Amino acid sequence: MISTQEIISYLAATLTTTSFLPQAILTIKTKDTEGLSLGMYGMFTLGVLCWLIYGIHIADEAIIVANAITLILAGTILSYKIYNTLIRKKD
Amino acid sequence: MISTQEIISYLAATLTTTSFLPQAILTIKTKDTEGLSLGMYGMFTLGVLCWLIYGIHIADEAIIVANAITLILAGTILSYKIYNTLIRKKD
Repeated sequence: MISTQEIISYLAATLTTTSFLPQAILTIKTKDTEGLSLGMYGMFTLGVLCWLIYGIHIADEAIIVANAITLILAGTILSYKIYNTLIRKKD
Repeated sequence: MISTQEIISYLAATLTTTSFLPQAILTIKTKDTEGLSLGMYGMFTLGVLCWLIYGIHIADEAIIVANAITLILAGTILSYKIYNTLIRKKD
């Protein structure tokens, strides 16, 4: 049987992960990263990677799954931001 | 002695929490929430609250501290967004 603890952790994981989905879709569609902070996404993505490593260390499934998905989403947004900052400089 | 696991968890906590600080400061200063998604911040804040409850359940200090601070930061941004959406409607 699923415990209350598991329900809370999966609810937490679903909410914090899903919240990045609309932003990722918007960035992929428009390729516009003007309004996004490179510092914030850089720090956040690195932090999520650390949470993923931590989840693997303590073998916590909710932390692993949530941060793996968030890493892909935040990493995608960050890649577009880095690409736009370095390559496609606006005149 | 502090373990590698603890170092990773506190590094993770510091990075993901700190990343919301520049956004919170900017929102408090400018009160401008036009570019922020109500859906994203609503979901994210609720998710962070769930992670905090989960951290208390499994008695994990890093998860508790990180999510308590993130809840204050994301909650502040969300409050401005809700206030601007409900009260100060643009003509």
